[in-house]
Amino acid sequence: MDSFFEVIGIEDAVAMAGRFEPVATEEVALEEACGRVLADNVLADVDIPGFDRATMDGYALKAASTFGASESSPAFLTVVGEVRMGKAADVAVGPGQAVRIATGAMLPPGADAVVMIEHTERLDDTAIEVYKSVAPGQHVIEAGEDVARGQVVLAAGRRIRPQEAGILAAAGCRQVTVFCRPRVGIVSTGDELVDAGRVPGPGQVRDINSYSLAGQVMEAGALPATFGIATDDPKDLEEKCRRALEATDMVLISGGSSVGNRDFTIQVLEGLPQSRILVHGISISPGKPTILASCSGKPVWGLPGHAVSAMVVMAAVVRPFIDRLAGLDSSGQLVPTVTARLARNLASAQGRVDFVRVRLRKGADGSLEAVPIPGKSGLIRTMVEADGLVAIGQHSEGLDAGTMVNVQLI
Amino acid sequence: MDSFFEVIGIEDAVAMAGRFEPVATEEVALEEACGRVLADNVLADVDIPGFDRATMDGYALKAASTFGASESSPAFLTVVGEVRMGKAADVAVGPGQAVRIATGAMLPPGADAVVMIEHTERLDDTAIEVYKSVAPGQHVIEAGEDVARGQVVLAAGRRIRPQEAGILAAAGCRQVTVFCRPRVGIVSTGDELVDAGRVPGPGQVRDINSYSLAGQVMEAGALPATFGIATDDPKDLEEKCRRALEATDMVLISGGSSVGNRDFTIQVLEGLPQSRILVHGISISPGKPTILASCSGKPVWGLPGHAVSAMVVMAAVVRPFIDRLAGLDSSGQLVPTVTARLARNLASAQGRVDFVRVRLRKGADGSLEAVPIPGKSGLIRTMVEADGLVAIGQHSEGLDAGTMVNVQLI
Repeated sequence: MDSFFEVIGIEDAVAMAGRFEPVATEEVALEEACGRVLADNVLADVDIPGFDRATMDGYALKAASTFGASESSPAFLTVVGEVRMGKAADVAVGPGQAVRIATGAMLPPGADAVVMIEHTERLDDTAIEVYKSVAPGQHVIEAGEDVARGQVVLAAGRRIRPQEAGILAAAGCRQVTVFCRPRVGIVSTGDELVDAGRVPGPGQVRDINSYSLAGQVMEAGALPATFGIATDDPKDLEEKCRRALEATDMVLISGGSSVGNRDFTIQVLEGLPQSRILVHGISISPGKPTILASCSGKPVWGLPGHAVSAMVVMAAVVRPFIDRLAGLDSSGQLVPTVTARLARNLASAQGRVDFVRVRLRKGADGSLEAVPIPGKSGLIRTMVEADGLVAIGQHSEGLDAGTMVNVQLI
Repeated sequence: MDSFFEVIGIEDAVAMAGRFEPVATEEVALEEACGRVLADNVLADVDIPGFDRATMDGYALKAASTFGASESSPAFLTVVGEVRMGKAADVAVGPGQAVRIATGAMLPPGADAVVMIEHTERLDDTAIEVYKSVAPGQHVIEAGEDVARGQVVLAAGRRIRPQEAGILAAAGCRQVTVFCRPRVGIVSTGDELVDAGRVPGPGQVRDINSYSLAGQVMEAGALPATFGIATDDPKDLEEKCRRALEATDMVLISGGSSVGNRDFTIQVLEGLPQSRILVHGISISPGKPTILASCSGKPVWGLPGHAVSAMVVMAAVVRPFIDRLAGLDSSGQLVPTVTARLARNLASAQGRVDFVRVRLRKGADGSLEAVPIPGKSGLIRTMVEADGLVAIGQHSEGLDAGTMVNVQLI
């Protein structure tokens, strides 16, 4: 098989997501919507706010009534009433008049500004002095200033953060149409693997990937489902893959994807229904021998077996791939990266993107330093010690100590 | 009351967490542990790995048998067997001998290195030539190299990321003792508020904070519980606060904390059982009129009513406060910040930390720019447009365009 496939770049691997159907959509209550991806544009059913609204405690008035007012020459106004919170103002404001108002209340007819209570002095029940002039619109949020009725509040493809939940509430959107969370099946392979609940015998190790990959799937907003450990028997792996394919939208197999003598993942994938190998090798290190196949119209990944390699491929390739399947419009998406100064020289081979694990620490001058963590990709401890990954581009031979680097938090 | 309280700094407000009991602990299955905070140190019950392990496909041998080997002068070795994956090697390796081995398998007795299959040529069933010398330990993970038996794998107070879930699996930790998720009660106050499910009448607006604050509570790894909208009637607010206090570990009240005429949150808080006001005013903008009280030994926050102000106080103060209650050891904790170039001058008042909403965009040279979003703190839209917050320190009068700033993603 190998000869038919060229190693492809990370972006091309992620772009393979375009060959698959995005997940279906569902309605959820607004309370459950945080973290989900919006499937439809949401329009405001009303102006937000629905009326001119005071942003300070004080007096609503015509700004013109205060023009020229100062400490030495206050404006004198007649108080003609008070606005009750949550009610329509029942009194209008004319020139030289003021209405008492609290933050958040509706401006009375005729008023176009609010003077802060701190800039006034009450003379008696119906008279105040104003020591400062206000401009029209001052201390007022206008009707529809936050969102105008009929306007698109949020566009489809957007991830709902707490503030998006807030604006959906303001738009009266108690039920939200979102993309379903992609269900992701996880299969670990290898005769040497035993579950975390067992004590490994000679030659055996506990299965790490079923847990670390499930964690990464959850962080991507998707739903992991584990299908256990397949032995190095093609029938066992095929049976577990079939079950995973039936129950989920995407399958992750870890182990068995390098070129050694027990590497039969690709043969098993080729034997699955409507199977086609799309990717066999990505120019990334660690993680080069990654496979992507389409089986029954669903993506199936063959990830490296080493815990670190599998996690790096997840962070760099599979995570953005899941985002696309999940309906996320990633055009404006930001991967949270921390800028830090590299503490040590890093060598790198050209022709691939090297991902180096780093720990972050405060340097002598208080700025952040990224300290590379040496260690084999079979050592999960190196990921536990790491705060993030630094990518060294494929045209780079390495980075010098002192270079500012972007650290992708993991 | 006000005269008794000085406005305090953000860090002092967060440090008030030390006056409260941290939440209790519970056992959860490892599958459920991601995102939780570890409550006990976890020790490895075995060496990880339990044996010297090959990291490449090839031949296990004594490194000395290859010394001096090269393309022009290969070493000649006798193949005495093969290691089966997941089994103890049943054959020992002597000088001049080699045993076939796959990635992840257990080294046989006598072997101290692995030569990659690519650097060998098979002559017949029992003989190979080796074209490259290997050093002792090469292509081998030693027993206990990842984690040694009895070593602390993870310390209490640590947040469990996917890689921590992985190392817990390797340590045989199927059940994990974690801190409970703090339960956080949420009460919105104001006669002007109606729930998102209703159409606001004149003077009314929909309640945003119950949804946006719940989202932020979830992002903090805590469990939100909403107790509805309290009218501007002290009895109603007191009754909702009592119910929230009984059912949760901490209560957030939003609205009613400024100095205006309807601001009775503080009176209600003072009337709650075993009540003591700890903070009345934080040197932060927006969000200065924030209150923190201790009621029946539990923290109760009075947050500003404006949606943006409440979210900023949550991000800057309440989130790290929750982390402490949740048992997180935040000594090494990193707030994910993105470094960007400020696109515009920003003025700021001294004596408080100003939080400015910014949008991130790629500048002409490809580097990130932070573009301040103007707008009143009553406009939730400005938070929806924002990617993050820039804090301007309390001793700063502002920042010049072009300054590199840290953007806290929100």
